[in-house]
Amino acid sequence: MARTLLCEPVVLFRREDGGAVALEDRCCHRALPLSMGKVIGDRLQCGYHGLEFNPAGECVKIPGQDMIPPDAKVKSYPLVERWKWLWIWMGDPALADDRLIPNWWWFDHPEWELVKGKYLKLGCNYQLITDNLLDLSHLAYVHLNTLGTTDISEFPIKTDREKDMVRMTRWIIDRPAPPMFQTLGNFEGTVDRWQIVETFSPCLTQIRAGACDAGSCNPDLGEPGEGMHIRSLNAPTPETETSTYYFFGHARDFAMGNKEVSDDLFRMVSQTFDEDVVILEAQQKMLTDWPENGLIDINLDAPGIAVRRMLARDIEAEQV
Amino acid sequence: MARTLLCEPVVLFRREDGGAVALEDRCCHRALPLSMGKVIGDRLQCGYHGLEFNPAGECVKIPGQDMIPPDAKVKSYPLVERWKWLWIWMGDPALADDRLIPNWWWFDHPEWELVKGKYLKLGCNYQLITDNLLDLSHLAYVHLNTLGTTDISEFPIKTDREKDMVRMTRWIIDRPAPPMFQTLGNFEGTVDRWQIVETFSPCLTQIRAGACDAGSCNPDLGEPGEGMHIRSLNAPTPETETSTYYFFGHARDFAMGNKEVSDDLFRMVSQTFDEDVVILEAQQKMLTDWPENGLIDINLDAPGIAVRRMLARDIEAEQV
Amino acid sequence: MARTLLCEPVVLFRREDGGAVALEDRCCHRALPLSMGKVIGDRLQCGYHGLEFNPAGECVKIPGQDMIPPDAKVKSYPLVERWKWLWIWMGDPALADDRLIPNWWWFDHPEWELVKGKYLKLGCNYQLITDNLLDLSHLAYVHLNTLGTTDISEFPIKTDREKDMVRMTRWIIDRPAPPMFQTLGNFEGTVDRWQIVETFSPCLTQIRAGACDAGSCNPDLGEPGEGMHIRSLNAPTPETETSTYYFFGHARDFAMGNKEVSDDLFRMVSQTFDEDVVILEAQQKMLTDWPENGLIDINLDAPGIAVRRMLARDIEAEQV
Repeated sequence: MARTLLCEPVVLFRREDGGAVALEDRCCHRALPLSMGKVIGDRLQCGYHGLEFNPAGECVKIPGQDMIPPDAKVKSYPLVERWKWLWIWMGDPALADDRLIPNWWWFDHPEWELVKGKYLKLGCNYQLITDNLLDLSHLAYVHLNTLGTTDISEFPIKTDREKDMVRMTRWIIDRPAPPMFQTLGNFEGTVDRWQIVETFSPCLTQIRAGACDAGSCNPDLGEPGEGMHIRSLNAPTPETETSTYYFFGHARDFAMGNKEVSDDLFRMVSQTFDEDVVILEAQQKMLTDWPENGLIDINLDAPGIAVRRMLARDIEAEQV
Repeated sequence: MARTLLCEPVVLFRREDGGAVALEDRCCHRALPLSMGKVIGDRLQCGYHGLEFNPAGECVKIPGQDMIPPDAKVKSYPLVERWKWLWIWMGDPALADDRLIPNWWWFDHPEWELVKGKYLKLGCNYQLITDNLLDLSHLAYVHLNTLGTTDISEFPIKTDREKDMVRMTRWIIDRPAPPMFQTLGNFEGTVDRWQIVETFSPCLTQIRAGACDAGSCNPDLGEPGEGMHIRSLNAPTPETETSTYYFFGHARDFAMGNKEVSDDLFRMVSQTFDEDVVILEAQQKMLTDWPENGLIDINLDAPGIAVRRMLARDIEAEQV
Repeated sequence: MARTLLCEPVVLFRREDGGAVALEDRCCHRALPLSMGKVIGDRLQCGYHGLEFNPAGECVKIPGQDMIPPDAKVKSYPLVERWKWLWIWMGDPALADDRLIPNWWWFDHPEWELVKGKYLKLGCNYQLITDNLLDLSHLAYVHLNTLGTTDISEFPIKTDREKDMVRMTRWIIDRPAPPMFQTLGNFEGTVDRWQIVETFSPCLTQIRAGACDAGSCNPDLGEPGEGMHIRSLNAPTPETETSTYYFFGHARDFAMGNKEVSDDLFRMVSQTFDEDVVILEAQQKMLTDWPENGLIDINLDAPGIAVRRMLARDIEAEQV
């Protein structure tokens, strides 16, 4: 499988033992994408002249000659498969550290039901997606027909800045449950709802949302164990400066095994994200034609601005 | 309605009183085109976060906060509606002067019948359209199947240069009337015909054409009151350096109220302009790939060259 | 007929006597492609204002004026029709020398049967096509489904470098004939086969291939007169740096007049080249995005490298 990531061509394949491998998708001989070749055991064979590469990216066979020159190799990227996602490290392999992978255990745990995920290919910079996820005030305008019927802007947001994470929290106290929650939760009265959106540097965003009987939990203590819980995990992965693969998925701890609920949730999320795509691509086009001069910030941008500061700090640290 | 004019994104909408408004089509917050939002009374609401702008381009509402920062505004363009056209001023608003709008009163007068107009989007610089309108010698080659059956090149053209206008005049004396004129004019003998093409800086071209009984008027006195008259009004409006919206329309003072004549005229004009589009876009493509070096002028280019000089003078004056 | 060659717009037409003419495809007046005009006798008339050009590229008529300015002309390219191909000289006309045209007499000789040719438009630099033709080791990977079933890499190649030509020779000794040769040649036992690929500077490649009874000829003496012979003549013609018209054709001295064999051969060659197109365009895309740094050569590249050296020498000589 071929994919351009951070402007580099990457080919992904699986070894005979099932382990995933990521190599530079460009033969070191005549530059053909290796993704046009075929997997032979643990090796990838170039589709032009038959050179073969092992998972370390080393050329181990050249038709017509015995000697393999030492520079006959392609880049191999550290790759870890965890929580049903593949995590690739595009930087210096020596600095790869799998402790940087977020703990998205909900996607691989029997007490959580995984909603089918998918990915979108968006014509925008990845940061615009993070901005979008951290700013739920756009629901009332962009998602009027899907999510945004309730005006939630009367409930204030709180922004927490940690070293490598920004958190946006909003509690909606003592209100009727939205339709889906009401149907599945059988609440007798009003509910307290929460949206806890956390972005980890550089651009991994987890949303914890849920609802419980009004008054049954203490917002000051964070997300409660009571009630219904949803996890939305989001991993925008840059293709180029202005295009991004947006991988996402959802997990929940209610209506376990109920395929209909899963399908409904998937359909709702897909429709919502399709609405965002239109906005984000139009925004990117305008930013490309007319760079940022003259733009202003508003109060609701606080979490997004905090993430951009965190990111700018991390990018600057990498330049040293 | 969104339109790019002179490389700037413009959004057009109407106030509750029907007046037309032109604003910068880019929200000052996160750059979404405002044309993706909606009109609420006299205001335009952004489709991403709900900011609202008045006809002056000032942001008058930001959801989630009371204070509006003073730089929360977008550009507002002076706009006048006259002769059934919208006239926008893209330069310094302080210099907008509606006396520069040509007097195209024929489009809004009971004694003139307006032929349905339309616009074409052409992949060429606006000056190529002016060249084309001022040079009717191409009829014999480009419009062989529509207008160009008669060879009119035996009749000389006259070029007049005024301060902000160039005029090309051709009289075709004592010849049979072309079919349409003959049918509608019931001429008993030959006719005298005229083509008076006037381009006002920067690129507004009006064509006065018509026919009268041969010998019944004096060409030296300009267009006569006798006979049949047509007005062709042309306003190429640059989108970018190499693309142009070409707005045009026609009025006449004969066959008043005759819809069939209007439809015929519209169809003929549309076919003719479609033939020009092919030429102008091929010409632009070649000029883009191979800039002007090596090109020569011929005698018939005199009016077009005069317009380019007028335009160059005006552009230079603007740079000061 | 319009064609861009070496980044220049060229128009081709035939005089009344059938002779082919190549002119610059851009009118010297207002830059319209002359290929949009029409041929009038031996002249090409521009489709915009009717200027007419003779085969020497001189403007010989300008509507509306008698005087033709001396710089009213377009470039005329030396053009020779030989061996059923048109040979154009894009450089200084004074240096055109038809002795540089290769002697591809097989295409115009009664003892050789010409297989219908065609051309492909490829999105790659012309040198990648030469590399491909000189390297038959890719048959086992790219043309597995058409030509490449036999592994011929066990037979070594020989590279000869002459002043303006590079030759790659491979003999496959004492093996069963491939299906087509067997069917048409009625060989009783094994055969000796040869592939003699010769590239003349800058990029003209002729392939002489054939088969004869094993042991009936002496490989040291070059291609034998015995047996069956095929000529594959290849003239990649650059459109731009990254696109090429690839003209090719085949001739043979067996199954004369047998249309079925011609059709089979044509179909086989077309399928094979279609497989190459996919490879070459993917290769070009990668080379455009990621220039050549880090690429290595292998033993089988020797002929291709020799051609590139010859070409670099000739290009350098032209710069002086």
